[in-house]
Amino acid sequence: MSVAAGVAEMPQPVATPSARVGMVGAGQLARMTQQAAIGLGIELAVLTDDALAPAVRAGARQIHGSAGDARDLLTLAEGCDVVTFDHEQADPALLGALAEHAVVRPSPAAQLMAQDKLEARRVLADSGFPVPAFVAVESPGDIERFAAAHGWPVMAKSRTGGYDGRGVWVLDGPEQARDLYDRLRAAGRALLVEELVDLECELAVLVARNPRGQVVCYPVFQTHQHDGICHEVIAPAPVGAELADSAQRLAVSVADGVDAAGVIAVELFVAGGKLLVNELALRPHNSGHLTIDACHTSQFEQHLRGVLNWPLGRGELAAPACAMVNVLGPANPGDPAAGLAAALEVPHAHVHLYGKPWRPGRKLGHVTALGDDVDEALQRARAAAAAMVAA
Amino acid sequence: MSVAAGVAEMPQPVATPSARVGMVGAGQLARMTQQAAIGLGIELAVLTDDALAPAVRAGARQIHGSAGDARDLLTLAEGCDVVTFDHEQADPALLGALAEHAVVRPSPAAQLMAQDKLEARRVLADSGFPVPAFVAVESPGDIERFAAAHGWPVMAKSRTGGYDGRGVWVLDGPEQARDLYDRLRAAGRALLVEELVDLECELAVLVARNPRGQVVCYPVFQTHQHDGICHEVIAPAPVGAELADSAQRLAVSVADGVDAAGVIAVELFVAGGKLLVNELALRPHNSGHLTIDACHTSQFEQHLRGVLNWPLGRGELAAPACAMVNVLGPANPGDPAAGLAAALEVPHAHVHLYGKPWRPGRKLGHVTALGDDVDEALQRARAAAAAMVAA
Repeated sequence: MSVAAGVAEMPQPVATPSARVGMVGAGQLARMTQQAAIGLGIELAVLTDDALAPAVRAGARQIHGSAGDARDLLTLAEGCDVVTFDHEQADPALLGALAEHAVVRPSPAAQLMAQDKLEARRVLADSGFPVPAFVAVESPGDIERFAAAHGWPVMAKSRTGGYDGRGVWVLDGPEQARDLYDRLRAAGRALLVEELVDLECELAVLVARNPRGQVVCYPVFQTHQHDGICHEVIAPAPVGAELADSAQRLAVSVADGVDAAGVIAVELFVAGGKLLVNELALRPHNSGHLTIDACHTSQFEQHLRGVLNWPLGRGELAAPACAMVNVLGPANPGDPAAGLAAALEVPHAHVHLYGKPWRPGRKLGHVTALGDDVDEALQRARAAAAAMVAA
Repeated sequence: MSVAAGVAEMPQPVATPSARVGMVGAGQLARMTQQAAIGLGIELAVLTDDALAPAVRAGARQIHGSAGDARDLLTLAEGCDVVTFDHEQADPALLGALAEHAVVRPSPAAQLMAQDKLEARRVLADSGFPVPAFVAVESPGDIERFAAAHGWPVMAKSRTGGYDGRGVWVLDGPEQARDLYDRLRAAGRALLVEELVDLECELAVLVARNPRGQVVCYPVFQTHQHDGICHEVIAPAPVGAELADSAQRLAVSVADGVDAAGVIAVELFVAGGKLLVNELALRPHNSGHLTIDACHTSQFEQHLRGVLNWPLGRGELAAPACAMVNVLGPANPGDPAAGLAAALEVPHAHVHLYGKPWRPGRKLGHVTALGDDVDEALQRARAAAAAMVAA
């Protein structure tokens, strides 16, 4: 029994963070990574020249600079246990140089797969993974020869720099092909063409992997794109158990094959009852946002654990069904924050805002909802998302 | 069909945060509030003079200053939609003055209940809520007269400033009573005594409330204290449906009675099969940490929604059972972050670190685990917590 002393205390040592992680990029993926980092006692630094970037506004430490500057990359890496990425736009040569001085995960070689669509197709095809028929385009004649074999229309893609539907074109005939080829060549951009796959649906499989070789595969999600932008994701994907199982095994093989570290998203086409690998993202991905609220371990926590070579968490869904709906900037200027209170009226909705300024079609946030079945979850998520777009 | 333009963009307007919230205090409660604020697009500012406070390290904006300085409180309130609290140590007079210039939630009057244990007992008893027998102590004779009626030992409590077992003493007889009285009087502290309740167990009920009168009650949790410090929490509390129902109705009545805004934690004694109100916290509380991983809406998101007068979220458990175990500083210096990887090996464990320096018995983090039953969840959470304390 003693009377407690006053609150004056001796100077205390400072707690060491459990790890320091540097992230190239500071968008919404980095923002949600910052949320996960807090719980794990990780200090996250982000490389960006935008003091109002989503992750900086969420409290990640800003390293002023650009992914295109070798010195800035080194500054980010200084004092960090590992450097990772919220986008795949960094120059592979710069990353290679960085990797001589710092731990870079995923490796620059692996990231090439996500940067260059032609490289990805080639490596995957060479490794025996199913991909759409494709060819590198060196001249307009390449497109015409490919179309003669596979039929018009064909899908043309910029090798690099495309995302959210940018850098992808459907070509109906030789005239469009030549026109596109000329315009891209003038812009210094290279091209590949692919068969236009007769889609039944699109799936995404997230796999987490750490350098010690531990692998966790999430359930299979179905994605709904519109104009190439992900609009909605539902889980579990309403496909048979056999196809889902194949999709998971395929995704794990791809993750192993590209030596992924952290989270990898494998986007799959389903066509003629078969799976084709569409694209890879070697980072957390829009298709996995629902893992925050619907899975035991979010893709953002999982990515941190993976790149730090820590034990991974479980990936199961914590509810029978789940849906995620993106909040995209409406045609007319409007801030979804203005509709937040209305969105929160929707029971079971989990709202996530990114702190980004409005632009039409821009991803400004997302809503996840759980439910007893996919329809129920989707209805809830759509209602909340609509409340913010209508505001 | 068009070739995408380059990435150069017009200067963009900055996204408005959905709200700006000021919080007095920057400990682990503010840190976890910052995590919740990110998702809702809320900018959180915290008042503290410690640049390494847990919430500041998590990225909340620091307002340098102290809760004991009227000007600092005003600086915090500037530009904020509402001011709220992660502790109840602020001077009621200062808060009253602040409330003339800013929205303060919960109200200074309500907070008095959490600051002054005698005031809380009186208000609750006057309102007809069941509380342990108690009396204000003006002289050592008051203690002896109370003990004559209720028997030794009695429980003595400092009216203000006590937490985590500090400021609470069990008195076995008149000699100890006089000794404590003298020592507290010398320190300028006032006292009350209570009957020593023959406890069956302790419960905690969290209630969220907003000024428009919406109320959400969480399931009943059972808490396990040791030396007055919360060690473990399990949910649902293994009590009968009738008692659980009474506990929830009692907690909601208390929340309404004290005009709570945001989250209130009502700590209850179960004695002789009946409920007694022990203590109140008009803020997120240790007993509710499990809501982050186990409930649809965490107490931190709920507190923000409550003080902002936004619609509240659902409170149900998302799993059959859940347990939370605090990570307390061990006797010998040690940073739980060193044992983090080992803790993450435990399946189903959710680890939360606060970024605080070690001190014996100090709350440095917590672990939550879900399970099919309470025993399973508790075993998992204990294993992960032990891994960090043993490190």
